[in-house]
Amino acid sequence: MKRFHLGSKLQYRVLQPSTFLFNVAVIENQHQSILSERIRLTPDLSFDKHLSDPGESRYQRVHVPPTDYFEIDYEAEVELKPYYAPDTNIREVPHEILPLAIMPYIFPSRYCESDRLTRLATLQFGNLAPDYSRVQAICNWIYDNVFYLSGSTSSFTSAFNTVTERVGVCRDFAHLGIAFCRALDIPARFVTGYVVGLDPPDFHAVFEAYLDGRWYLFDATRLVSLQDFVRVGTGYDAADVAFATIFGAMEMSHMELFINEKSNIGYQSDVRPISTIAE
Amino acid sequence: MKRFHLGSKLQYRVLQPSTFLFNVAVIENQHQSILSERIRLTPDLSFDKHLSDPGESRYQRVHVPPTDYFEIDYEAEVELKPYYAPDTNIREVPHEILPLAIMPYIFPSRYCESDRLTRLATLQFGNLAPDYSRVQAICNWIYDNVFYLSGSTSSFTSAFNTVTERVGVCRDFAHLGIAFCRALDIPARFVTGYVVGLDPPDFHAVFEAYLDGRWYLFDATRLVSLQDFVRVGTGYDAADVAFATIFGAMEMSHMELFINEKSNIGYQSDVRPISTIAE
Amino acid sequence: MKRFHLGSKLQYRVLQPSTFLFNVAVIENQHQSILSERIRLTPDLSFDKHLSDPGESRYQRVHVPPTDYFEIDYEAEVELKPYYAPDTNIREVPHEILPLAIMPYIFPSRYCESDRLTRLATLQFGNLAPDYSRVQAICNWIYDNVFYLSGSTSSFTSAFNTVTERVGVCRDFAHLGIAFCRALDIPARFVTGYVVGLDPPDFHAVFEAYLDGRWYLFDATRLVSLQDFVRVGTGYDAADVAFATIFGAMEMSHMELFINEKSNIGYQSDVRPISTIAE
Amino acid sequence: MKRFHLGSKLQYRVLQPSTFLFNVAVIENQHQSILSERIRLTPDLSFDKHLSDPGESRYQRVHVPPTDYFEIDYEAEVELKPYYAPDTNIREVPHEILPLAIMPYIFPSRYCESDRLTRLATLQFGNLAPDYSRVQAICNWIYDNVFYLSGSTSSFTSAFNTVTERVGVCRDFAHLGIAFCRALDIPARFVTGYVVGLDPPDFHAVFEAYLDGRWYLFDATRLVSLQDFVRVGTGYDAADVAFATIFGAMEMSHMELFINEKSNIGYQSDVRPISTIAE
Repeated sequence: MKRFHLGSKLQYRVLQPSTFLFNVAVIENQHQSILSERIRLTPDLSFDKHLSDPGESRYQRVHVPPTDYFEIDYEAEVELKPYYAPDTNIREVPHEILPLAIMPYIFPSRYCESDRLTRLATLQFGNLAPDYSRVQAICNWIYDNVFYLSGSTSSFTSAFNTVTERVGVCRDFAHLGIAFCRALDIPARFVTGYVVGLDPPDFHAVFEAYLDGRWYLFDATRLVSLQDFVRVGTGYDAADVAFATIFGAMEMSHMELFINEKSNIGYQSDVRPISTIAE
Repeated sequence: MKRFHLGSKLQYRVLQPSTFLFNVAVIENQHQSILSERIRLTPDLSFDKHLSDPGESRYQRVHVPPTDYFEIDYEAEVELKPYYAPDTNIREVPHEILPLAIMPYIFPSRYCESDRLTRLATLQFGNLAPDYSRVQAICNWIYDNVFYLSGSTSSFTSAFNTVTERVGVCRDFAHLGIAFCRALDIPARFVTGYVVGLDPPDFHAVFEAYLDGRWYLFDATRLVSLQDFVRVGTGYDAADVAFATIFGAMEMSHMELFINEKSNIGYQSDVRPISTIAE
Repeated sequence: MKRFHLGSKLQYRVLQPSTFLFNVAVIENQHQSILSERIRLTPDLSFDKHLSDPGESRYQRVHVPPTDYFEIDYEAEVELKPYYAPDTNIREVPHEILPLAIMPYIFPSRYCESDRLTRLATLQFGNLAPDYSRVQAICNWIYDNVFYLSGSTSSFTSAFNTVTERVGVCRDFAHLGIAFCRALDIPARFVTGYVVGLDPPDFHAVFEAYLDGRWYLFDATRLVSLQDFVRVGTGYDAADVAFATIFGAMEMSHMELFINEKSNIGYQSDVRPISTIAE
Repeated sequence: MKRFHLGSKLQYRVLQPSTFLFNVAVIENQHQSILSERIRLTPDLSFDKHLSDPGESRYQRVHVPPTDYFEIDYEAEVELKPYYAPDTNIREVPHEILPLAIMPYIFPSRYCESDRLTRLATLQFGNLAPDYSRVQAICNWIYDNVFYLSGSTSSFTSAFNTVTERVGVCRDFAHLGIAFCRALDIPARFVTGYVVGLDPPDFHAVFEAYLDGRWYLFDATRLVSLQDFVRVGTGYDAADVAFATIFGAMEMSHMELFINEKSNIGYQSDVRPISTIAE
């Protein structure tokens, strides 16, 4: 078990009545528990909450009148179970028995145009064993072939760009991983969260592939440890899980994040700590 | 009330064991009822069924061994309530009260990159009244500015292409309509179905916008009457509702559709027959 | 006649032996004369010069060893004849008599994918009179429909992006003007220069269309007066006339420009001062 | 020496007065001589000729009134010197001594967006020896990674598409070769011609890289022998050297090509017959 104290503050100048949809609160699932949590809005407006259909993201929505200072301040203490190393037999799921609710994660999406990467993915990864190691090979390829550079891409950048332009940030690495998986007919999805080790602290993006009946986490950036990743949102790609979707007119004036590991509680060194099961 | 007899036949040569996921069967909802229905596979393989989460599409999945002749033959008799002309006060829904489950239909998707059309949509439609007539204006713009030409586009073509290249088929018209709506923060989605009046008969694609608490159908092609449209699939865009998604290796050898109106049963001429409510 | 004192300074940290190809010096033609000029390199390296084939751009090339400080400092005094307002009969040139050397300016180029804008351009401008006023209509459309925003685009941005994304800088405005012209089979090209009135001072980009046997200048940004524009480079698009093309490894450490009008010499107010002839 | 008898026939239905610019006649240079030649138009219209500035392409222009049958029928007998295998020391040219007239062939163009492939090309080919073998490695990579498939691409397809979509025809193979070269700062250009061995006979496209002071031919398709390639057009990319550029309204009704080798005249087997010098 690991415990984290984490939080984020987003501040805005609101120019017209605006509706904010936030996705900054961590999720609760089999893998992570929220020990305590607090969301504070300034001014103290009421907001409504929503758990997305598949239980994968939590949203807070608030309508804000014009003001020079609007802030959402989120803070939580979270307990995380360690991820176990996958067994040797984590196989891709044959399409005739794939749960039909998982199917949409094979389809292309805004930032993951897997349909345009089919030949490339087949050429590069088509002959590999259809299991966990193949998705790992995808991550290795991305790590080896895409240059991580802050500020190098925009909200328009998609996997189709990244696979050729070969530069990006965590979000682009995740999109390309997802696109390659889907091009090979492996369901894959986008995951955001807080993670220890980013400098400066920021939301992190990784991806999950559906193998052997479960979702497995992958991070092609190798920037951090997935043992220190606390999940916030899960979606098809970044279009689904922006930390803030805003209808109206505003300017962001400030943004900050933090995440600290608290005392290690019973974390034992013999636990094999490589990426694995979520949920 | 109108009654339709409709059906489709898809034939394949299957080269390797392949999984087919079909989306050719019509849906049942408040607006349309299935009077009778039959799905016949040749050879007579067993298949499993799936109703997508929001109750919007039905899928049949079948695993097929290599064979020179595999066919799915679908036939149904359907009763359709007329669509009523919308009232004058069909307003867009303010974002602070939009059901959060509807939110994802504002986000960009594979074929509807609404994020890249924001300025254009605002310039073109931003000053119009935020109601039904604005979506109608979008349809008019598409009809006036995009040339309908069979075979002019491919499965790679997206709204971002169409808005500049100005040529496409029904799928492209629907994608552009959706992209414009979303760029204006109006939820919109993709709908496929059978429709009377296409020559040669083919699956048709239209779109829906979420207004005043309901989904309203729109068709920018003006090729057919929405009174004669029987719904099959509903999704974010064409990536979700292909009539056949296939994992494996095959060649399509034949495809045909038909739809005929049966005797009009109690259809009265004083019903104002313009597009409106689905579901 | 107008006289301008102008110049630019570009400074670099050179990390490896690098070759610099500069295009910062003004051109001499029927319309503009260089009264005096000076190019100073620090360190004082020798360079070779090149006048591009059609006599449209001057290049300075210099090979630079690694150094913390490399500077090119250009300064000139230039005399400019006023541009006259075009007569009423500036017609597009029929393709059967268009000089064949001008033909390539109808073809699409890196940033001006006119082939993809054919239908749009025809729809928007196809019915206008085939003369100077049609290119002016193109400029008006761009001015009305594209938002000028510093820093909004990158060196990857092309006319195909701008026509939909509707935001850009002078370079993007020029590219879109060129693309529309070529889509209508009007030869068009890209022009860079110094201009009075930009804040902060920067290289400016405009475009030329070939009409009635001459090249006519157009500027869709309306930011400055073409009477105060001193030409540097002319090419198919920005790919041809970068102010600096660099082979090697360096960092730009500083860049500045200036341009001032000197005493007006004989400039008479009865001269009709709108865009016209170059060369 | 080899001799070829070759020709092409293009037939059109001309709907409105139209101007045709043809580029179907072979070029004469140090490597290939025209022994006899004939261009016949039906109806027998007069046309004007043009040799493009760098002496690289010949154009015939003709203005055609509406007619049900317009044909250009070209036929030539050509003698070709064998291409010699390059010596071992065919080095890339340092940029400080590259002829400035060659520079534009390093810049990106419509179908060769080399600026977007810089990182990929550097990663893939950056460490190879900067000589002939590096361009050969580029060809090998394209051959190994791009699938040749007739009809798979359109006139919109560029190197940026092909490098990811991994499918194309000779034109796409050439564009990608050019884009990779330019991304490595190697001048490269597009070449069209007649070639023995295509089935059905068609215009072929290859590319040239500028090395050690000369242009060297490369063909990544491996479909034919460059010993049997007779050059027609040379340009930045396919935008420059379409076999027919047409202003007006017409329909192509028929197109055919042929090329046959005549008696081998003094061609000796000890000639090392791999790609080499043009011009």
